[in-house]
This record gives sequence, structure tokens and C-alpha cells, in this order.
Amino acid sequence: MSDTAVHNTLVSINPRTGESNGATSVTPSEGVDDAVARAAEVAESVGDLQPRVRADWLRAIAHAVDTEPGLVELADRETAKGTDRLTAELTRATDQLRFYADVAAEGSWLGAVVETTQVGGSLARMRQPLGPVAVFGASNFPFAYGVLGNDTGSALAAGCPVVAKAHPAHPLLSERLGRLAREALQRSGAPDGVFAVVAGFDTGPRLVTAPDIAAVGFTGSQAGGLALWRLAAERPVAIPVFAEMGTVNPVVVTPAAGARFTDVADGLAGAFTLGMGQYCTKPGLVLAPRGYDVAVLAGQALLAKAPAGWLLTPAIAEAYHSGLRDLGEAGAVTVATVPGPGGGASVPAAVLSVDADRLRRGSRLLEECFGPVLLVAEYNDDAHLEAIIGELQGALAASVITSGADDPDVSGLVRRLSRIVGRVVVDGWTPGVSLAWGQQHGGPWPSTTAPSTTSVGAAALDRFTRPVAYEGAPDGALPPALRAANPWRIPRRVVAPAAQR
Amino acid sequence: MSDTAVHNTLVSINPRTGESNGATSVTPSEGVDDAVARAAEVAESVGDLQPRVRADWLRAIAHAVDTEPGLVELADRETAKGTDRLTAELTRATDQLRFYADVAAEGSWLGAVVETTQVGGSLARMRQPLGPVAVFGASNFPFAYGVLGNDTGSALAAGCPVVAKAHPAHPLLSERLGRLAREALQRSGAPDGVFAVVAGFDTGPRLVTAPDIAAVGFTGSQAGGLALWRLAAERPVAIPVFAEMGTVNPVVVTPAAGARFTDVADGLAGAFTLGMGQYCTKPGLVLAPRGYDVAVLAGQALLAKAPAGWLLTPAIAEAYHSGLRDLGEAGAVTVATVPGPGGGASVPAAVLSVDADRLRRGSRLLEECFGPVLLVAEYNDDAHLEAIIGELQGALAASVITSGADDPDVSGLVRRLSRIVGRVVVDGWTPGVSLAWGQQHGGPWPSTTAPSTTSVGAAALDRFTRPVAYEGAPDGALPPALRAANPWRIPRRVVAPAAQR
Repeated sequence: MSDTAVHNTLVSINPRTGESNGATSVTPSEGVDDAVARAAEVAESVGDLQPRVRADWLRAIAHAVDTEPGLVELADRETAKGTDRLTAELTRATDQLRFYADVAAEGSWLGAVVETTQVGGSLARMRQPLGPVAVFGASNFPFAYGVLGNDTGSALAAGCPVVAKAHPAHPLLSERLGRLAREALQRSGAPDGVFAVVAGFDTGPRLVTAPDIAAVGFTGSQAGGLALWRLAAERPVAIPVFAEMGTVNPVVVTPAAGARFTDVADGLAGAFTLGMGQYCTKPGLVLAPRGYDVAVLAGQALLAKAPAGWLLTPAIAEAYHSGLRDLGEAGAVTVATVPGPGGGASVPAAVLSVDADRLRRGSRLLEECFGPVLLVAEYNDDAHLEAIIGELQGALAASVITSGADDPDVSGLVRRLSRIVGRVVVDGWTPGVSLAWGQQHGGPWPSTTAPSTTSVGAAALDRFTRPVAYEGAPDGALPPALRAANPWRIPRRVVAPAAQR
Repeated sequence: MSDTAVHNTLVSINPRTGESNGATSVTPSEGVDDAVARAAEVAESVGDLQPRVRADWLRAIAHAVDTEPGLVELADRETAKGTDRLTAELTRATDQLRFYADVAAEGSWLGAVVETTQVGGSLARMRQPLGPVAVFGASNFPFAYGVLGNDTGSALAAGCPVVAKAHPAHPLLSERLGRLAREALQRSGAPDGVFAVVAGFDTGPRLVTAPDIAAVGFTGSQAGGLALWRLAAERPVAIPVFAEMGTVNPVVVTPAAGARFTDVADGLAGAFTLGMGQYCTKPGLVLAPRGYDVAVLAGQALLAKAPAGWLLTPAIAEAYHSGLRDLGEAGAVTVATVPGPGGGASVPAAVLSVDADRLRRGSRLLEECFGPVLLVAEYNDDAHLEAIIGELQGALAASVITSGADDPDVSGLVRRLSRIVGRVVVDGWTPGVSLAWGQQHGGPWPSTTAPSTTSVGAAALDRFTRPVAYEGAPDGALPPALRAANPWRIPRRVVAPAAQR
């Protein structure tokens, strides 16, 4: 293999062994430009379609993925997540595509308003697709947040063509899912250009700086997300980057719950080691009342569970080892550790404890360590807990663990945590973001670059749209969603002058 | 007056004469920090209030402004807009405050969703205020987009305390409106800290970089808006800047309308000289079918109207003169001009024409010239028009002038223009943004920094909120808007599992 050939392929690595699964081709610059040009060419016609048509496309993709043999096995070779988890994830991923299809067809995401103004004029407003979207999926969910994940599903639902970048942690699966989707789209009569997958590191900046790309969806590391966000801001026409990056998700155990923590420790150990801790919603820091040995209980639960596995890539495993060292240097002490199975990207799982007074804004202790590690700190009283929470970064999600009934602290804590996260879970764990109309998967900076948006749930479509108002336009010149006859039968707000003031 | 004292005051200039109206004090850094600290201190309690309470505050401010004598005269001394226009603007401004009060109380802006998930859990989601907002009002609308303008009204309605910067074009009015609002708020029982006005150039960056400021609303020049946007992106915790800046708003005259342009030329001349052309929605460029002398007709209408007035400040007048020179150097030719009345910030009004082939992306011809100037270019046919539109920047609004009935080109043009603007007006002019639920005042980059938002209308509140989801929380721990009894009686989406899939 010549040097050039090496540079033109992306090798898939088996995390269990560190060996190659094979390779896929890197998309050359012209290939990226071509995919973007084809997306731009069809963007207006795709965006103008009745949403039900795009819903059918999404259902066709879901069906193709559901009925394709071998996807789970391929994903397992690339991610070592295990076939059970991957089977569940695949179902989740195709459920998602169908969910976004339903949301698209229902139509309330268009935010249609049909109004007669006070001076008797007609004014109508609706959300319209932005145009081609670049999607950067995550390493940790090759199906649910991959090239056919939430960002692709919601962007297509909203009427935006998508150019997705294959993830280097699962390039073969990315390529295969891309081909499946393109074939399904073609069979459904969708125009060529509505979806493409490109591969290779250099395709990232090329996509984000392509003049025809109108928005970026990203799920992954803070370094990666912020780099794309900065690049997009330097464009002559700046575009939004919806980067879901994640930080440290806190768990607060109330004083009344401290005594029953033996009962819940098992759940916590399961939550922070789920998928080998490779969830952006992994609980990363437990704040527990002093005097209940919550760190010890969590450590015992970890030892009892004894999770063993591999991280997604050797690089992620290396970053985890380095993160563990950093936490130690910052004052964290190991309470319990379970060694990895060995080989490839094998890593240990660990519970650490730390003096709460070390939890200060800017400390490494308050930054994410991606993998199966949990930090536990004890607070003395309400004021101490309040001060610690004040040091935390914005995060995606938080848990409050209560006494189970009539806990006097639950209301205050839910309220307090709602100021710094996008989702508050009571007596439950943050991993596992249910697919729902009212879901919010997003949070204050720096857990995301766009805290007012969500990357999961019905509102995910909003990211890829902007409102346009039409004033005095004849009925036939309005988009169908705003015409008097409401031919798409979507929910609309109808406003008469009296209602305005 | 010592040097220090000079630096510590902000002199108000009468645009008619260039002479001083008096001066107001510059807020020292500690004063800015103090205003932000007070805002931060009350932010949570203000955000938690039932929206009706904040609605009452807004109505109290509106009443105080409506009943205060001398405001119009003061505004006229600072802006030379004329007492008629300022009287109408004052009414608009207090109507706006009452509109945002109504929107706040109605509650649909909370986007409340109450859901039972497929696994039987409870999930609820609503928008919550971001925290203290810094507001930078505009020079051109001292009432409607000033310290008590749309941004302040919508931020307070959404539950965010506001620190507004006095505009250097009307510092005395800004100060007086600030005092009136603070007194009205105090009488209404609002906590100190919910609203403050600061003054002086240095207060701008100090506000935007203050750690407790959560978002920025800005209306003004591209240079100013982008400077604040960049500054906000460099913060350790980046915050959104909703900058409404404006570019060149196009007017397209269809071929069928060309022949009746004599009838509409008067309306156009009125539109681009309204308020001496100092509207961000001013029509700046007319694309007319070749062969109808639309430039000449527009020029005749300008001469007939003979508008004469002053721009808001000597600096704005100087920028306008320099803009006219630039347009001439870029190939625009004067068709008609009306000299200014002389003195102070007096400027001429002008209609220019230019060869359409000079309208190329990046040309000065396609950038805003703030003031009473209109550029007219002729297109040959549909393909030529399409090509010209393809060169235009994103803009706030566009007009389509049609034959009046069954114009075959109107649908295509409305559709085409909706891709590059936030508001399309048919057979009307873009200045004058009606206050309505379905209004959209915003547009693609670089007319705004946040094309998915609006700075006027019910959706203006959305900018200052972010959604939070609550999972498994006991009813009493939920915010009132999400509790089973719906004590605030707001519209909510209730989702049962069957509806999900």
C-alpha cells in the first residue's frame, strides 16, 4: 500500500483487540463539495414538500435499517458495546426516525400563525428550513447519534438535506448506514442529494466552511464541538452550530436520602458504568450528605457489579487514563476500582472521593472524564451544598436522590439544579434520554453551544428552521401551511385583531 | 470643567444645530457592576413569579411613560425626528409594553409540555428565563427600540432583569425613561435590581463581559452588533447576542407592475425617506423591469415629496455622506436629489440608479447606506432577476410590487425572497413593523446574528429563555406552570403515551 493510499483510507479498529476491521475510503475534497452542491441543489424543493412526504422517507430509512442483517455485529466489531446494547440501540434509532417522521407530519413545529392585524392587513408566519445541514455524529452511539441519529432525523424532518460525516470510531457502519439510507431514499422517490455520508478528518472543516451549508449538528467532545463552533463563526456568513458536548452531570443526595443510600447505590453504579460510562448524561459527581459513607457504598456497589469492558477507541481509552491521573493530581482518592478485561481499549472502572472544598470553578475535578469513573464528595449542610452547586459548570442533566416520599429538600434542589442543567431527574438516573415530545437534551454552556435548543425530542426540529412572515400576500402566494384552506391540516394559531391587545 | 469631568459626562447634541442639549453622567465601572449584581440577585425570584405579576409591572411602566409630560419634546431636541412622529412612536412604545404584558400573561411562550412517557414516567418541559439581559437600544427609535423598547419589554415579560445602556444619540431621554421606569417598578412592588439604565461607551463591553449577564439584545449598526457578538463569544461562558442590524432591503417590481409604477412611486418615495430613511427596514434597492423608467419615476416622486430633515447625529450624517460617495464610486448615478434644510446633521435625500450587473456579492452597492437614499437597478428578464437576487445579502424584509391582481410572478417572487429575508411584504412597504403575534423582525446573516429569532412580536420572548425538562419530579417540586392543577391557567400540550407513537 502506498503512502497516498494510506492517507486515502480510514481504518476501523476493533477496540477489544486494537486490530483492524478493515478500512473505508476517505472522501476527497471534491467529493465533499459535490455532496454539498447536490444538497444545495435540492434544498428548496425538499423544504417546500408537504412534511408527510419527508416523513415517509424517514420511515423508509427506518425500515431499511430494521431489516438489514449484520448491522449489530458490524457495530460491535467497531465499538465493543456488546450485541445486547447495540440491538436495543438500533431499535431506539429506528424508533427515533419514526418519531421525527410523526413530528414532521403533525406540523406544529412549523409554528404557523395566521393573523389579521389591527389595521386589517393579513400577516402570516411560519418556520422554514434553513438549507443543507452538516451532521457530526457521536462515537458512543453509532446508531442513535450516528449518521442516522437524532440530528439527521430531525434535520430531514424539518426539510433540510443532510451531509453527515462518518465517525472515525465506526467508519464501516457509518458507510453502510449511509448506503442503506441512500438506497431507501431513492426507492421512496427522494431526490439524489437529500442525504450523503462523507468520511475523513479533513471533511469536517470543509463541510463547516462550505458556503452552502446552513447549520451544523454535532454530538461529541468539547474540543471538537468548540472547534467547529469557532470555525462557523469565522465564516463570511456565520452559521449556527448546535454542539451537544456534555460536562459533569451532578447527582445530589438529600440528607433524608443519605440513610437509604444502600438501597440506591446499585442503581448509581449501574448508571455511571452503563456503556462503560460513555454517556454524555453519565452521572459524574455525587454530592452526598456527610456521615453516610456514600462513597464507600458506591464503591461496594461498583465492586459487586464488576463491570468490565472496552472504551470505544484506543484514543478515548488513553484520554480516560490521563483523566484519571488528572483527577488524582487534583486531589481525588480511589475508593474502589474494577480492572478492565485487558486488550485493546480496556480500562478500569472506578469510584473516587474528594474533599468538597476542592470543587472550585476551573478545577479539573469539575470537568468531564469520559468513561466509567464517578467522583463523590460530601457536603456539611444546606449552605455548603449551595456553595458547591454554585461552582459547577452548566450541564446536560442532574439527578436528585430523595427519601422517596415527602422529602423536604426536593423542591428547593429541583429548582436550584434547574438553573444549571437542561433536565432534572428525581429519584432516577440521567443516562437514557426518553424519546418524547417534551424531552430536553441540552443545557447551559459549555455542555452545549446552544442552550435554548434540544438535540432529542420534538423540539429538535426547531434548530434547523427560521421563521418568515408574509404580509399582504395573496392566498395563492403563501406557502400551503399558511393558506386559508390549511391543505396540510396542521395546527395553527389564528389571531383576530381583538385578541391582540 | 476639568478633563476628568469631561470624560465623565455624555453630551446630548441637537441634530438640528449641532449644539449641546446638556449632558448626563457616565456610569463608572463600579456602577455597571453594581447594576448587574443587583439584577443577578433578583433574577431567580423575578423569573419564578407568575407572569401576570411582571405583566402588571410592564403596564405600570407604560402608564408612567404615557402620562409623563415633555418626553416627546425632549426626544425631539435629541433626535430631530419631529414631534408628530415621536408622538406616534411613544404610543407605539407603550402599546408594545402592554403587548408584551399580554403575551407574558397568556403563557404559551412557556412552551409547557406535560407528558406521560411510554414507560409510564412523568416528563414535563417548559421554557425558563436565562437571567439578567443587557439591552443596547437603537439610535433611530428612542421610544420603540430604546431603553424601554422591544428588547426590554420582551426580556422583562420573559422574566429577565434588564440593564439597558443609554443611547449616545439620546442620553437625556434614556436617563429620564430609565428613572420613570424604575419609579413605576418600585410603586408596583418590583424588587430593586429588575431594571437599570447605565450610560457611557465603556459600559457596553463591561456589560457584555459581566459574568452575570446571560444574554444581550442589540439594535443598531453592523459594526456595533458584530463587535458585541464577538466579545460575547470570547467569554469563558459564551452568551447569545441577539443583534438586529439590518442590511439592504430589496423591492422587486414585477414586469406586470412596471407599467403602473407611476401610481406606486409616491409610496416608495415616502417609504425610503420615512424618518429620513433611518429605518432598518428602509427599502434600499429597487429591482425593476427594464423599459419602465422606474428610477426616473422614483426620482420624480422624491422631488415632489421634497423631504427635508436631519439625521440623528452628526456622526450618522457623516457616515451617510461617505456612503453616498462610496455608492458613486461603485458606479451609482444620481437621478434626483433633494437638499437638506441645512445646519447640524442636515443631509440630502437621493435616488440613484445603477447598472444591475454591478450588483455583485461584496460590492458596496449591496451594503446598507443608513439614510434617505434609494438605489434602482433594471433587470432584463426572469433569469437576470434571479441572478441578481442570488447576489443579495440576507436582509430583514423585502417588498414585491405587483400588478395588483393575478400577477403571474408574485408566487415565485414571494417564495424566492422568503429564502433571503425574514419578512416578505406584497404591495406594501417594509418600514413599519406591526405589533402582532405572528410578526417576524429578523432575517438571515448578516441582517441579524440570530436568524431563528425575532426582536418584535410574541416570539421575541423566546430569545431570553431556555427549556428545562423535569423527569419523575413530584407535583409540588415542579414549577407552577407544570403542576397538575395548572394554577397559572396557561395553554399546555398534554401528551399521553398513545400519542407518542
